[in-house]
Amino acid sequence: MVSIVKTVLLGLGNVNQRLLKILIDKKDEIAQKHNLSFKIVGVVDSSGIAVRTRGFDYQDLINLKFNKGKVNELDCFLPKAPEEIANCVEADLMIDASPVNLKPNNPGLHLVKSAITKGWHVVLANKAPLVLAFDELHELALKHKTRLAYSATVCGGLPVINVLQRDLKFATLNNLWGIFNATSNFVLQHLEQGGTMEEAILEAQRIGAAETDPTLDLSGQDTANKLYIIMKSFTDFDGTIADIEMEGIQNVNAEQIQQAAQAGTKLKLVAAAFHKKGKWQLSVKPAPVAADSFMGSCDGWEMGIEVKTDLYESISMKNYEADPTGTSAAVLRDMIDLSR
Amino acid sequence: MVSIVKTVLLGLGNVNQRLLKILIDKKDEIAQKHNLSFKIVGVVDSSGIAVRTRGFDYQDLINLKFNKGKVNELDCFLPKAPEEIANCVEADLMIDASPVNLKPNNPGLHLVKSAITKGWHVVLANKAPLVLAFDELHELALKHKTRLAYSATVCGGLPVINVLQRDLKFATLNNLWGIFNATSNFVLQHLEQGGTMEEAILEAQRIGAAETDPTLDLSGQDTANKLYIIMKSFTDFDGTIADIEMEGIQNVNAEQIQQAAQAGTKLKLVAAAFHKKGKWQLSVKPAPVAADSFMGSCDGWEMGIEVKTDLYESISMKNYEADPTGTSAAVLRDMIDLSR
Repeated sequence: MVSIVKTVLLGLGNVNQRLLKILIDKKDEIAQKHNLSFKIVGVVDSSGIAVRTRGFDYQDLINLKFNKGKVNELDCFLPKAPEEIANCVEADLMIDASPVNLKPNNPGLHLVKSAITKGWHVVLANKAPLVLAFDELHELALKHKTRLAYSATVCGGLPVINVLQRDLKFATLNNLWGIFNATSNFVLQHLEQGGTMEEAILEAQRIGAAETDPTLDLSGQDTANKLYIIMKSFTDFDGTIADIEMEGIQNVNAEQIQQAAQAGTKLKLVAAAFHKKGKWQLSVKPAPVAADSFMGSCDGWEMGIEVKTDLYESISMKNYEADPTGTSAAVLRDMIDLSR
Repeated sequence: MVSIVKTVLLGLGNVNQRLLKILIDKKDEIAQKHNLSFKIVGVVDSSGIAVRTRGFDYQDLINLKFNKGKVNELDCFLPKAPEEIANCVEADLMIDASPVNLKPNNPGLHLVKSAITKGWHVVLANKAPLVLAFDELHELALKHKTRLAYSATVCGGLPVINVLQRDLKFATLNNLWGIFNATSNFVLQHLEQGGTMEEAILEAQRIGAAETDPTLDLSGQDTANKLYIIMKSFTDFDGTIADIEMEGIQNVNAEQIQQAAQAGTKLKLVAAAFHKKGKWQLSVKPAPVAADSFMGSCDGWEMGIEVKTDLYESISMKNYEADPTGTSAAVLRDMIDLSR
């Protein structure tokens, strides 16, 4: 008996595009192994809302974006603001893969809150709601008996959040460091190879890996967002994103990269969390790492993390992801976990 | 409201010793976060069975083994064969951390089956039942509405099985390779540094990392066992352990290690799975890996795996574990997962 999960898509960018593609490719497997079928009853982008209770054809939505179309070109378009979606359709689940907007109290955050209040489960690929309101969203979900999942917000398909929360659930973090932004890691590798920052950014945008605004990647903000989400998910850290010391790679130059190489190291944009005098010290900044270390092995389109805990000594993970498919697959695993 | 989970321990070796220590250290956290308390109502070793329905004191069991005692020295000892445990006490959960015995239809395997038949959940740190009867045990558990968990059987605390089954659940494996036996990896590193195999094995036994019979480590059998469990858990592989081509490191010599180093590689005991003409090709054998690769970065007391799938490109994980605490912590995460 296959359960139909009425699903709303927020954003029709790279992540949700590839999600639709996976839903087509793995439709039978999802039905057979997990007894689930996801019916897209609503789509939202900056142009507005479209609702179809009998469900959109996945391929139609892929074609719409392929042709540079927007939601307001669909025949079931409703002339309403995006944040009204929760009043426009009945659904079980919302996928938020809209662009990161860190402005306090922005409409996107309200939209997520209104979905939770309606009793919808929410899968986030968008980090902003967690960075702006981690505790508030979790309390709201508890109150309305819904659940949040967000394994796609940190390092694409690498299951960092799931491993920390599920597998290391009663371990205590001593310290961690990681490389959480593949675009800036690719830029640094391109500089190592004698290229320019501009070329690398254009390539990252071409393959759909860069954030819509690459400043988020290069400034360290995207890395800080992920470090914040990790700390809130796995430790007693109760500060804000502003507690993370942050320096980006915008001003890194070829000379610094060469100096690092001469010392047997590589310059990386490193996120780190350490305890100092009973307080968490969190930072994101360019730093040299030993070329033959695990961190040094994370090159180009790789992201990685190393965690030290009381029970597990050291656990390291990395992935290679040159397009957003892994992130979309992570969204799907969360959709399945929440729907069972 | 804390639920009491009546638990039987099979084996009182290194893994269950450290499990008892963690149960003492994390008692409050397990009760607060997971609403669980594990009451040890039975213990079994090669000397027999001891049962105490009001529960053993964790520290008493640690002290018993610390003083080289056996279960038959406990005042609640029952003069019965170990495999009769399921008829001697009421329980919810059994932890099998007894030594690996790969003889077909051995008493240990029957013991696990009788526990499942009684409706007990079973956590395995012992690989043998899975290697001998993977499908049969899963079918039996389904029939008796109990569950098996065995995340501690592969790479200690590294959550290989959980990541493959839960996080990569609708991905299809293209290929994988890994270093699954820390003792042999430590032996190879010790040879690299000019030491002897005998010294390295003694050290591995001293810290409690080697299998009771180190032949299992050196022959590649332990690695093959883990590869088999991975393939049965994550792919459509339907062969037996005998389908794995196996060669150990017993005959590796210093000259081979030096030759590998001169070529910029390291000799490792590598497990690999590839598709060839629609069939799985599985092997365990000494092989050179690039020194600056992820596999090359797994040294000494490290184990690691790299998997390539259709959706996630490449995901790699490794851990450093110089004593069995991570394995014991993995047993505890399985105990919690099964008890909720």
